[in-house]
Parts: sequence; structure tokens; C-alpha cells
Amino acid sequence: MTNLTPNSSFSLTLRLQIPNRIGMLASVTQAIAKSGGNLGQIDLIEQNHQFSIRDLTVDAGSSDHTEEIVQSLKDLEDITILDVYDRTFNLHRGGKISINSRIQLKGISDLAMAYTPGVGRICNAIAQNPEEVYNLTIKQHTVAIVTDGSAVLGLGNLGPEAALPVMEGKAMLFKEFGGVDAFPICLATQDTEEIVRTVKNLAPVFGGVNLEDIAAPRCFEIEAKLRQELDIPIFHDDQHGTAIVTLAALFNALKLVNKSIEKIRIVINGAGAAGVAVARLLRKAGAQTILMCDSKGIISTNRQNLTEQKREFAVKAQGSLAGAMQGADVFIGVSAPGVLTPEMVDSMTKDPIVFAMANPIPEIQPELVKGKVAVMATGRSDYPNQINNVLAFPGIFRGALDCRCSAITTTMYLEAASAIASLVQPSELNKEHIIPSVFDERVAPAVAAAVQRAAREEGIAGC
Amino acid sequence: MTNLTPNSSFSLTLRLQIPNRIGMLASVTQAIAKSGGNLGQIDLIEQNHQFSIRDLTVDAGSSDHTEEIVQSLKDLEDITILDVYDRTFNLHRGGKISINSRIQLKGISDLAMAYTPGVGRICNAIAQNPEEVYNLTIKQHTVAIVTDGSAVLGLGNLGPEAALPVMEGKAMLFKEFGGVDAFPICLATQDTEEIVRTVKNLAPVFGGVNLEDIAAPRCFEIEAKLRQELDIPIFHDDQHGTAIVTLAALFNALKLVNKSIEKIRIVINGAGAAGVAVARLLRKAGAQTILMCDSKGIISTNRQNLTEQKREFAVKAQGSLAGAMQGADVFIGVSAPGVLTPEMVDSMTKDPIVFAMANPIPEIQPELVKGKVAVMATGRSDYPNQINNVLAFPGIFRGALDCRCSAITTTMYLEAASAIASLVQPSELNKEHIIPSVFDERVAPAVAAAVQRAAREEGIAGC
Repeated sequence: MTNLTPNSSFSLTLRLQIPNRIGMLASVTQAIAKSGGNLGQIDLIEQNHQFSIRDLTVDAGSSDHTEEIVQSLKDLEDITILDVYDRTFNLHRGGKISINSRIQLKGISDLAMAYTPGVGRICNAIAQNPEEVYNLTIKQHTVAIVTDGSAVLGLGNLGPEAALPVMEGKAMLFKEFGGVDAFPICLATQDTEEIVRTVKNLAPVFGGVNLEDIAAPRCFEIEAKLRQELDIPIFHDDQHGTAIVTLAALFNALKLVNKSIEKIRIVINGAGAAGVAVARLLRKAGAQTILMCDSKGIISTNRQNLTEQKREFAVKAQGSLAGAMQGADVFIGVSAPGVLTPEMVDSMTKDPIVFAMANPIPEIQPELVKGKVAVMATGRSDYPNQINNVLAFPGIFRGALDCRCSAITTTMYLEAASAIASLVQPSELNKEHIIPSVFDERVAPAVAAAVQRAAREEGIAGC
Repeated sequence: MTNLTPNSSFSLTLRLQIPNRIGMLASVTQAIAKSGGNLGQIDLIEQNHQFSIRDLTVDAGSSDHTEEIVQSLKDLEDITILDVYDRTFNLHRGGKISINSRIQLKGISDLAMAYTPGVGRICNAIAQNPEEVYNLTIKQHTVAIVTDGSAVLGLGNLGPEAALPVMEGKAMLFKEFGGVDAFPICLATQDTEEIVRTVKNLAPVFGGVNLEDIAAPRCFEIEAKLRQELDIPIFHDDQHGTAIVTLAALFNALKLVNKSIEKIRIVINGAGAAGVAVARLLRKAGAQTILMCDSKGIISTNRQNLTEQKREFAVKAQGSLAGAMQGADVFIGVSAPGVLTPEMVDSMTKDPIVFAMANPIPEIQPELVKGKVAVMATGRSDYPNQINNVLAFPGIFRGALDCRCSAITTTMYLEAASAIASLVQPSELNKEHIIPSVFDERVAPAVAAAVQRAAREEGIAGC
């Protein structure tokens, strides 16, 4: 099994009772290091003549690895393990978001304004002038994050309850990075019509809808139908967020290798929500030669039963991914771990660009193509050039809500991608720095500004 | 038009420029007092040799009254009105609730635990063991507040957008008084089946559903169907919250006049959601003689086209409200302003009890029955004995969520009512103090404890 770098998603806190004798703490830290764990913070909890109780935080690379590390400490005779807790699980206890009052409620007077009878005047004002809902309620800055749990991260159809932690996390990111309030809606149905009807019924409270983790091809129809029937922006992040950030990264990578998007041969592996959206956006950005592949190989016109979306990108050529990769300039992976081999990369043309975005394990590990590629990017935070949707969706919705536009359009995707790419100054641009960090505070405002600009040019801004 | 006491629901802040000469500020305060406004806080904003700019907060009794007050200040030659803003409207700008992260998101490590890839392990844990959704997400402490806007406060069918300020206010109250997270869901449909289906589709995120401001008689069917189809507690507060607090008040009022619930003659005016639920609960508490009236008078068996709920309480007697009131011990109003006259109250039996709960203007003003009744209660905060649902719903849901019970039952309503009533000590019990104040911090925990106790006795606690 691939040896993954220890990281905080497999992070334990171990409470250990350690005798106060020479070499005792050393034996602990050595055991952890020998097991390949990353030792982080050490806190003293209690201390007396005989022993010290310390909390040690250790990152592992996998569940099995955490067990190895714990076992290596159990093997130490003099050390007692008082408690082991999984930091990720602990962090999730009680959920990750809360709904709070924005104003005080200390006495009768506050109640009479925020609730009855004062609130009645606000209701009447909206009833008389419906646009006032954007001034007097949360609608102006609140987005629904809607899923049916049918494609949770890369884990498959786990259902709505299992999807909720991801949606809560998304709500945190919306707030942290875009200042947008977002609430998770996990639907107990996977029927397209039912989903559309339910979201329409929910719409009054929300200024926009972010669709998330809904499997292809239903996601295309759901997004299209909601866009038709609602006058608030609808945006499937797995499609367009991925496409925007991929395009931003590609803009800068092409600058580095001095190639133009019209002339390059692009292979996209993965024909789900992300693959289709990336292909569509690259085409809009000027790409002429796109070979889309799925698990069966090149999507070619002689295949039977292609979905409508796959047919958009079907080509005459037939063959495997390896065949497609010969002479390709760019590989974009939105598929599965390990499907790209060093040999395939060798067969690419000069100065190849590889974006291996399968998460958590990419289509090819960066270590395997060191020196073979001009630019490498993944979806992981522990390698350079992390292609992460959080560079897009907070600013996209921030901008859309701020100008109350009725839709999020392809022009906005293109402008957002340019805005993200342009935040990497020419002097900073190099093969390990083609996109901004997710923690770069300039990103969301720049994306929001690009969205507003596009909305006003397209004449769809509401205010 | 009834002269209403100035209160904060008609509260202005006036920014005035007042010359620094003797008598200038006095002319302002006198003008306000002469117009009948209640002057509250005065803040100095700016001051120089010539003038002071001050913010004055003034409560009025109605919209017209606010205009009179402003006009009386415009009439002052030396005073300049720089700005007038309505405090209730200002408070509502941007809405009254926000969704926030419960944990920090400062770096890559936090992201890897709260979002990908760490969150994937949480999703898998729930997928393998669905009950874990209660430990690892917001479900355990989050309630949906669901309305279709068809009966917003006493204002009628204003629709979902106009209902949103009330639902946001309700969410504030759930958090402030019960520590329960609550999110507003305002539905763009008023079809019973559609509402039931939509709420079922939403249910995975929520530990309970509070129905609000849905018109009778659809509300009865909607609640009943949702209770049948979902295994989380469903509670229509306009029905049962009102009934619980009314019963609590009645328990104590009857103690004061030394009457028993079985022997008294009760008139309930209003046969909507609240009236029906009050009648049902009083019956369960032992009441034998209930005369329900609507706008046509006594609901009698010889009337045509009675709804199922009205038929439950139809009697042989016929006549008007006045007829029903003759010899009655208790009047409970959940109807309309001014429909009860002093003459009707005079015709009641000895030591009559009057709960006139129409909001904001009661069925009869307390001033008109001073000395005529043993106990008077309204829904208003500016008279003693405020019968306010906020005494019930926060604790009801707190208790239900804490023991993860699958339903909220009549036994719980009865136990909650007893718990609320018992918080008024015998030594404190008098005609102006029959129920606790909404700000009494013992209420929600006492109600929650009663709910849990009942859930365990009934065998429906989930944990």
C-alpha cells in the first residue's frame, strides 16, 4: 500500500504516564520516530515526584499506521497509555457549525423588536415590497449547500447523513474564506425531479444554492433545471469550482512553458462532473484539442450508450489512456489513484504539464515524475501547487450575492480563473508556484470583484 | 383607535443638531413628552462651540404616533433633525442570525481535519454506523423551523419571504433560551402533500422539526403525517406551545380561586390551531365542560360543514359568544381583538378567570375588567401574566434532543405544563403572578427535564 506522508487527518493525542527517570521521555519520542509518526505538540498535564502525565500529538499516514504507533508505545514497559483520542473524531463531536443570534436579547425591549410585536412590521414591509427580503433578512448573504449524498468526496454513494460532515465543513469554508453564511441541506432522495422540486420549495430563505457531491450525470440535469426555474444563482462546485481553479493553474503553467491554449493537446482523465466541466471551460477558454478518457479509455464516437455530456467530447480516435497520452502537452486527472504511469508521462511531448487531482491519492505520485514534467500539481496540501476549489467558490458566491445577480455564468468562470491566476506575480511564478495558496487573503475578494464585473457587463446584476 | 402604550416595537432613534443655548435640549425633551413619546437613551455624538449632535431614542405607540413625534420636533425652529431611523428596521438589516464555525480554521492542519481528507473518515464512520450522525454532526442539537407563510403571527397569509423575519426571531429564541440551534425553512408551497414530502426530504440534517405559522386546518394534517413518516420529534408550536403555557397558567389560576379543572365551565374563543390544541390539552388534563366558539358563535352540532377538529368540540347548545359566557368560570381567547365585552365578563360566574391572548391587541383590554376578574392574563409583555410560548418550546426541544426521543407526546405537554406552573412558589402565587417570567432561567431546564422524564417513562428515549 502506498506509504502516505503523516498528516493531521490521521492525528492522535496520546495521554501518557511517563516515570520521571532519565531516558523515559526519550524512549517515547524515539518509539514514535521509529514508527514513522510525526510528533507535534507536547503538553504537560500533571507532574509529581514519580511521574509526569503528558499529552503528545502525533500525525500518522493512515489508520493502520496509527495502530502501529500506539502498539510501539504499548511495547514500552515503563510507559502507561492513559488515553488515546483521535483528533479528527474529537473535532467533529457535536458538529462543526452553530447558528447564533447577531443581536442581543437581554430584555423585554429587545424581544419586542426582534420578535413580536415589532417583527410584524418587518413582515408587512416585505409582504408589501418583496425585494425588501434582501435588506431585512439573512437571504442577502446566505447560501444553501445541497447534496443527496450520492458522490461524497471520492467515497461514493454514502447517503445524506454520511455526507453531512462534508457539508458542514463546506459551510465553515464559505464563512471563513468568503464571509458567506451557508447551511447544509442533505436530501433523503436521489430522484432528479424530487431534488429539483425540493430545492425550489426551499429557495425563499436563500440567496444562492451550491450543489455538492451529487453524482454525474444527474448533477447536470439538476443544475440545469434549477437554473431554469429559480432566479437565484445555482452553482455545482464539483463541476465549476474545479474547472475554474484548473483553468487558473493552466493559464500560469502555460506561461511558464510558453505554450498557448489553442495549440496544446490536452488529455482529461475522468468524465464525471469535474471532467466534463473542466473540458467545457477549457474549450470556452480556447482549447481546440481535448481527449477525454474514462475507465474504458478514450471516449470515442464509435462507443455505444454514451451520455449526452460524454458525446460532447467524443473523438474519432480510439484506444487507451496510454494511447491518448502520446504526444500530449497536458494531463488533467479527475479520476482515480495510480492510473497514470511514469511511462505514459515519458510519452508526452516536451515540457509536459501534469495535474493529478484525484483526492486523496493522485493519479500519479509527484515523486515518480520528478524531473520528467515542467509543472506538476495535485489536489493535496502537502505538495506544491494545490488545486483546491476553495480558491473559487467562496469568492464566486460572495460576488454573486453582493450584486444580487440571478445566475453564475461561463463568463464569470473565465474571469474568476483569470483573477486567480493573476494573483501570482510574474516575479513569483515558477514551477512550484502556479496558483495562490488557499490562505492568500487576496483571492476571495479578487474572485468576487471579477464576478461582479462580469455580472454588470452581462446586465444580470440585481443591485 | 386604541391608544397603545409606547413600546420598543415602535422605537426611533433621532439624530438632532441642538444649539448650545439654554433651553434648547429642554425644548426637545418637552416636545417629546408632550407628544406622549417615551424618551430613553440619549447619546452625545459630536459637540463644538455652536451645537451638540445627540442621538435620542424614543418609543412610540404606533406608526402614526412616531410621525406625530417627529413632526413635533420639526416644529421646533432651532432644532435640526439630521436623521431618523426606525430601530426595529435597523435591527433587522442583514437578518438576525448567522452561521459560524465552532472550531478554528487557521492552517493546513486544521483544514485537513475539518475538511478533506480527514472528514472522509468521519463520513465513512457514519456510513458504517448511521447512529453516529448524532455524535459527529450538528443533527444532535439542530431543529428546523418550518413554515409556509400562510398564517404569519396574526397577520395572515403573507407568504414565505415575509415569514422569514419571524422564523429568524424564533431561531434566536431557541438559541437564547434553550441552547438549541435552529434554522428557518420557509417553503414556497402551501400544498399539504408537497410540504410533507419536502420536510421528509430535508430531515437528515435535523434532530427535530418545529412547525410554525401554518394555517389551520392544514397544520393538523401536516403535523400528523410528518409524525407518522419521520422518526424525529415534530411539534407545531402554535398548537402545543400555546396549549402548554395556557394550561400552566390555568393550573395556577385555579389554585388561587380554589376551583378544580373537572368542575369548571371553560369558553375557548377561536377554533384555529391554538384553540383546538388548547381544548384538546385541557380535556386531557381533566376538563369536562368546554364550549368552543368561532366567529359564528358557539360551535354546535347542528352546524353544517364543520372541520374534523371543530366537530371534536361541537356541543348541542347554540348561540353567540355572549351566550356561552353566561356562568362560565374561564375565558380563553385565541381569536381577535376586542371581541370580549365587559358585559360578557360580568355574566361569568364568581371569581372568573380571563386569558385574553390575541396578539398584539387582546380580546379585551385588562383595564376594562379591573376588579371584575379574579385573574387576568394576556399575550402582551406590558401586562402581568404574559402567556408566551417561549416558556415552552425551547425546553421542549432541549429535552427531546437531549434524550433523542422519537416523538413529543401529550404526556410531555402535561408534564411540561406542570413543571412551568410549579416554578411559581406558593408564597409568590398571586393574581398578578401565575406564571414565570420568560427571562426566568429555571424554565427551560425544568421543561427539558420534564420532557426527558416522560420520554423515559414512555419508553421512547433514544439514549
